[in-house]
Amino acid sequence: MKPVVVRNIERADHGGMSVYGVSTVHEAMGRVGLMKPYMRPIWPGAQIAGPAVTVLAQPGDNWMIHVAVEQCRPGDILVVGCTTDNTDGMFGELLATSLHARGVQGLVIDAGCRDVKALHEMKFPVWSRAVSAKGTVKATLGSVNVPVVCAGVNVEPGDIVVADDDGVVVVPKRLAVEVAEKARKRNADEGGKRNRLASGELGLDMYNMREALAKAGLVYVDNPEDV
Amino acid sequence: MKPVVVRNIERADHGGMSVYGVSTVHEAMGRVGLMKPYMRPIWPGAQIAGPAVTVLAQPGDNWMIHVAVEQCRPGDILVVGCTTDNTDGMFGELLATSLHARGVQGLVIDAGCRDVKALHEMKFPVWSRAVSAKGTVKATLGSVNVPVVCAGVNVEPGDIVVADDDGVVVVPKRLAVEVAEKARKRNADEGGKRNRLASGELGLDMYNMREALAKAGLVYVDNPEDV
Amino acid sequence: MKPVVVRNIERADHGGMSVYGVSTVHEAMGRVGLMKPYMRPIWPGAQIAGPAVTVLAQPGDNWMIHVAVEQCRPGDILVVGCTTDNTDGMFGELLATSLHARGVQGLVIDAGCRDVKALHEMKFPVWSRAVSAKGTVKATLGSVNVPVVCAGVNVEPGDIVVADDDGVVVVPKRLAVEVAEKARKRNADEGGKRNRLASGELGLDMYNMREALAKAGLVYVDNPEDV
Amino acid sequence: MKPVVVRNIERADHGGMSVYGVSTVHEAMGRVGLMKPYMRPIWPGAQIAGPAVTVLAQPGDNWMIHVAVEQCRPGDILVVGCTTDNTDGMFGELLATSLHARGVQGLVIDAGCRDVKALHEMKFPVWSRAVSAKGTVKATLGSVNVPVVCAGVNVEPGDIVVADDDGVVVVPKRLAVEVAEKARKRNADEGGKRNRLASGELGLDMYNMREALAKAGLVYVDNPEDV
Amino acid sequence: MKPVVVRNIERADHGGMSVYGVSTVHEAMGRVGLMKPYMRPIWPGAQIAGPAVTVLAQPGDNWMIHVAVEQCRPGDILVVGCTTDNTDGMFGELLATSLHARGVQGLVIDAGCRDVKALHEMKFPVWSRAVSAKGTVKATLGSVNVPVVCAGVNVEPGDIVVADDDGVVVVPKRLAVEVAEKARKRNADEGGKRNRLASGELGLDMYNMREALAKAGLVYVDNPEDV
Amino acid sequence: MKPVVVRNIERADHGGMSVYGVSTVHEAMGRVGLMKPYMRPIWPGAQIAGPAVTVLAQPGDNWMIHVAVEQCRPGDILVVGCTTDNTDGMFGELLATSLHARGVQGLVIDAGCRDVKALHEMKFPVWSRAVSAKGTVKATLGSVNVPVVCAGVNVEPGDIVVADDDGVVVVPKRLAVEVAEKARKRNADEGGKRNRLASGELGLDMYNMREALAKAGLVYVDNPEDV
Repeated sequence: MKPVVVRNIERADHGGMSVYGVSTVHEAMGRVGLMKPYMRPIWPGAQIAGPAVTVLAQPGDNWMIHVAVEQCRPGDILVVGCTTDNTDGMFGELLATSLHARGVQGLVIDAGCRDVKALHEMKFPVWSRAVSAKGTVKATLGSVNVPVVCAGVNVEPGDIVVADDDGVVVVPKRLAVEVAEKARKRNADEGGKRNRLASGELGLDMYNMREALAKAGLVYVDNPEDV
Repeated sequence: MKPVVVRNIERADHGGMSVYGVSTVHEAMGRVGLMKPYMRPIWPGAQIAGPAVTVLAQPGDNWMIHVAVEQCRPGDILVVGCTTDNTDGMFGELLATSLHARGVQGLVIDAGCRDVKALHEMKFPVWSRAVSAKGTVKATLGSVNVPVVCAGVNVEPGDIVVADDDGVVVVPKRLAVEVAEKARKRNADEGGKRNRLASGELGLDMYNMREALAKAGLVYVDNPEDV
Repeated sequence: MKPVVVRNIERADHGGMSVYGVSTVHEAMGRVGLMKPYMRPIWPGAQIAGPAVTVLAQPGDNWMIHVAVEQCRPGDILVVGCTTDNTDGMFGELLATSLHARGVQGLVIDAGCRDVKALHEMKFPVWSRAVSAKGTVKATLGSVNVPVVCAGVNVEPGDIVVADDDGVVVVPKRLAVEVAEKARKRNADEGGKRNRLASGELGLDMYNMREALAKAGLVYVDNPEDV
Repeated sequence: MKPVVVRNIERADHGGMSVYGVSTVHEAMGRVGLMKPYMRPIWPGAQIAGPAVTVLAQPGDNWMIHVAVEQCRPGDILVVGCTTDNTDGMFGELLATSLHARGVQGLVIDAGCRDVKALHEMKFPVWSRAVSAKGTVKATLGSVNVPVVCAGVNVEPGDIVVADDDGVVVVPKRLAVEVAEKARKRNADEGGKRNRLASGELGLDMYNMREALAKAGLVYVDNPEDV
Repeated sequence: MKPVVVRNIERADHGGMSVYGVSTVHEAMGRVGLMKPYMRPIWPGAQIAGPAVTVLAQPGDNWMIHVAVEQCRPGDILVVGCTTDNTDGMFGELLATSLHARGVQGLVIDAGCRDVKALHEMKFPVWSRAVSAKGTVKATLGSVNVPVVCAGVNVEPGDIVVADDDGVVVVPKRLAVEVAEKARKRNADEGGKRNRLASGELGLDMYNMREALAKAGLVYVDNPEDV
Repeated sequence: MKPVVVRNIERADHGGMSVYGVSTVHEAMGRVGLMKPYMRPIWPGAQIAGPAVTVLAQPGDNWMIHVAVEQCRPGDILVVGCTTDNTDGMFGELLATSLHARGVQGLVIDAGCRDVKALHEMKFPVWSRAVSAKGTVKATLGSVNVPVVCAGVNVEPGDIVVADDDGVVVVPKRLAVEVAEKARKRNADEGGKRNRLASGELGLDMYNMREALAKAGLVYVDNPEDV
């Protein structure tokens, strides 16, 4: 596996998936593709979707992030995986300034991030496993735009990344159109359900769960001593 | 242990414990009953107290939470334990809408929660071990209103749960009146202490610690080289 | 190692390091001295620098923090290490009131903190490994103003502590003047770089990385199938 | 909750459950009652079952273990919970010698253990969350023979504890006879299944899973490109 | 993503990689492909290499492992990923008996394993993230022989898995021949180096590091006070 | 902080502390100086004591360990701290061969170790935070024989390190003689206590605890319902 930068990647269309949010997209895809929940936004409220430019980095080394900037286009989301668990602050204000200048929407990094106050003020969103001021070196090569595992999910360059306060989900390129459509439908359906539940209807009835529960063996008793 | 739902439980009275907060109630009870500190509010500022409706759930499965909704009354707090460590997003906006419609005050769940932005906007408070969009199935039974261990504390149905930004504490039913009274007293006492400390009096003097420290062998030296 | 309180310590001058922040100071010192990233502020936005008064505490016991208050002077930062990993809430509103009355700037504690809402309202900043209401006893001695390891860093009394939303860094007394000066320079340099990056110049060019990357063996290919 | 020692407890009969082991007993009880998997034996190969004498300890303090020794009888298993997460070495060779002299079968402790080499040589089995030489004090009271949560399970005095290389499971007193009988049956059944599987029969057929899998929607394809 | 079982997969040849072991193969591949170090053997000493049959499982559910058994051939290694972090004991003696009957070499599972004593006696090797008796259900579908992320590495069906006491590494199918050859060479080279080091030659000299160290700025001083 | 190697360090005498073991030495020193319990031996049974040669390493980089070998003398113990949490396999068979050739007793490393089978066969003892085959680079300088924090303890070059199956403790140079003598006494005392406890005498009586327990408020009741 030679260190390599792939210049041209096929970028999927996000089909408006930022509107539906992570939980809905994740359900629409069949409950796969979600990054581990240790990935948290460094400031709340951002909600984005876009194609991934990927980076494979080494622990304590952010050289390849500098390399990746040049490969980014407006609307992209930079996704950084690391060859080993590492929380060092590989990304901060200067890199964010550079990505922002190129129209990149945000960063997803399975490592640390620093300058969080400045990034919040810039409104540049980052999802990371840690906040850490630990500085990094520029000494060892990795790769750009190769498949990387980031927080438990395999990300191919150009896959759609959706991120909000609930976390980060990845939609493979070939499924993007289908998932966007399913997410749109789920979203539309939820309004009606919300109204019914808000009016006091029980999920047990709305989803017709009572029969299945009884069949599975659930027993109702009146008092604790009847258990 | 058959899967069971207990319909009628005895609910203790919280005696105004939401006013005193978790730290004070925990001290008033003799420093027991506190859930592990990984239980964090998904948004800051809420402070509640009320009787527990309990759920024992399986990992990756929120079926029993749907069952539990029907057993809740206004003022209740839903408490969900899980048979194994799990961070899946068992709870989101729709279930919150349903609980809110029944007057439930909030949720304490030893698993994950999703739709955190919507829950914050609804002002529905949740204390959880994780935020995760990971969807769950409805396939395996658990129980409702049986004793459950949640984040290291055994919770009996009807016990009083107190939760705020400091965490979650559980007061057994039979101690609720006594603890509420002790908490009220501690709270009243603290005002005076705060004023004395704010005026510059030392805790060493206010609590008469100097003699006990000397007896225990504490030595004061003037300079580092005297150590 | 007898329990001891050292009364007179030499306090270094922070030389304005609060202005530059943790990441800049950490870089200026050569990327050492940073506390582990589990140390997080209990509320965002504070940025302080000052000499350390140190405490060595036992798990579940905050007796020595009460002792340490008396040794604090205006501008100090209290630093608490613990002989074993512990998340108990050793510090809360009353101790904060006392420290505040003495002009102490803030607390760095490798254990838990409670009353976080009140501390936020008081604007008393704390960096801790956990928020926990777990009460502590006053039973076992430790020491004040001896060297302590706090979150992975050895802190000598009087060393300069710098803390902000990125974490906590410690500058040894003998390096304080030199590091403050280097931090000032780095800070001045960053403005120019930020402007160049914001205008679209690439870090690859600004830092002259292209030659070193090629020499290290980085290869650019046009398409994924060329890898 | 006053510190208390209960002298007389009702001890359940283990009904030979040590023979069946933890996994079988846990299944026989309906997949509940298992301690968290961080509880590991300090040496492999021990397999025990017996009634619990319980201890509630404070972090860094083993005073109540000394108190509990007197309450133990031959065949008992000592179970220690702690009011907060703690890995200190609360138990070592001297306490083991004392328990051994009283015929106690072993220790289950949600904290640390030390002198592991000596305990192995004595063949005194311990399940703990950590090995740690960290010494503890004898300063703060807890209780003996009250219900305690140990590694996520509520243990009542006299409940049956079963422990082996797979972990630790707790059987409530009132279920001990029923669970022992079910475990005996499961164990007897397993021999036949093992033989069939060893001869090459598939679990898919032995358990009649094919129809349910098809009904749930599982699809078989011949080649990856058919997915 | 529909639940699917792929029947025919292309299996790479391991080229004797079990002989060289994980560390050597990992180096030969350019220091990528290593599973996270939480993957540990349940008993020491096994060293295997073979093509992967992959399983994507849901938390607390081992249904798809039963399905996967039928797809295994002699020499295969079963690799189980899970959609979320889970330590439940998805695998035990009966499944091992079944895999053993089919000639499967071992199991790599990013979840829990039980019956560890029996598996050790059978000499069936397992690398897992936990030992846990926690029983699982057979309720939710996953897939067999699709790409899965296991402990941080993306595994394609038929990729070569190498596992020993140092951990688990995965070699992509298309690189198997090349990596096996490089590993053979590294292994051959190491003998000579070992002899030179054993005779007292320094790595500093054998690897010609002194010049690079000096160029990088390393300074030697005679005494601590010269620092 | 310039990268530096200090050639001449003062080595303390271990005074036979390997005989007493970690738990006894730790108690003799007043219950400080113990490394965190995540430091575990890679094979059981070794018990060593000797002066520390220290290394400060960067994550994923073992260059400075190669440098440190030259500074080691017979009887030394190499102690490696890292500037950030890292589990990479910085040490393996070749480095062990080199240290063994120089008479070094063992390694204590706050990072990962690999080739564990070979190290066990060589009987070269290592205490580490992880076993990992992850290879490291030789790109960034650190220092040798400067003070380093290793697993929560500040280690000065020449301090005495004691390590066995219970963990690792560090005795500062200036306390080595005193601690060795105290450890010898404790060890001698323990024999008598062990005999008394083995004969059935209770610790409650041997340590005269009953009065202190009563004074602290411990209450004995006959039955659970009396609580």
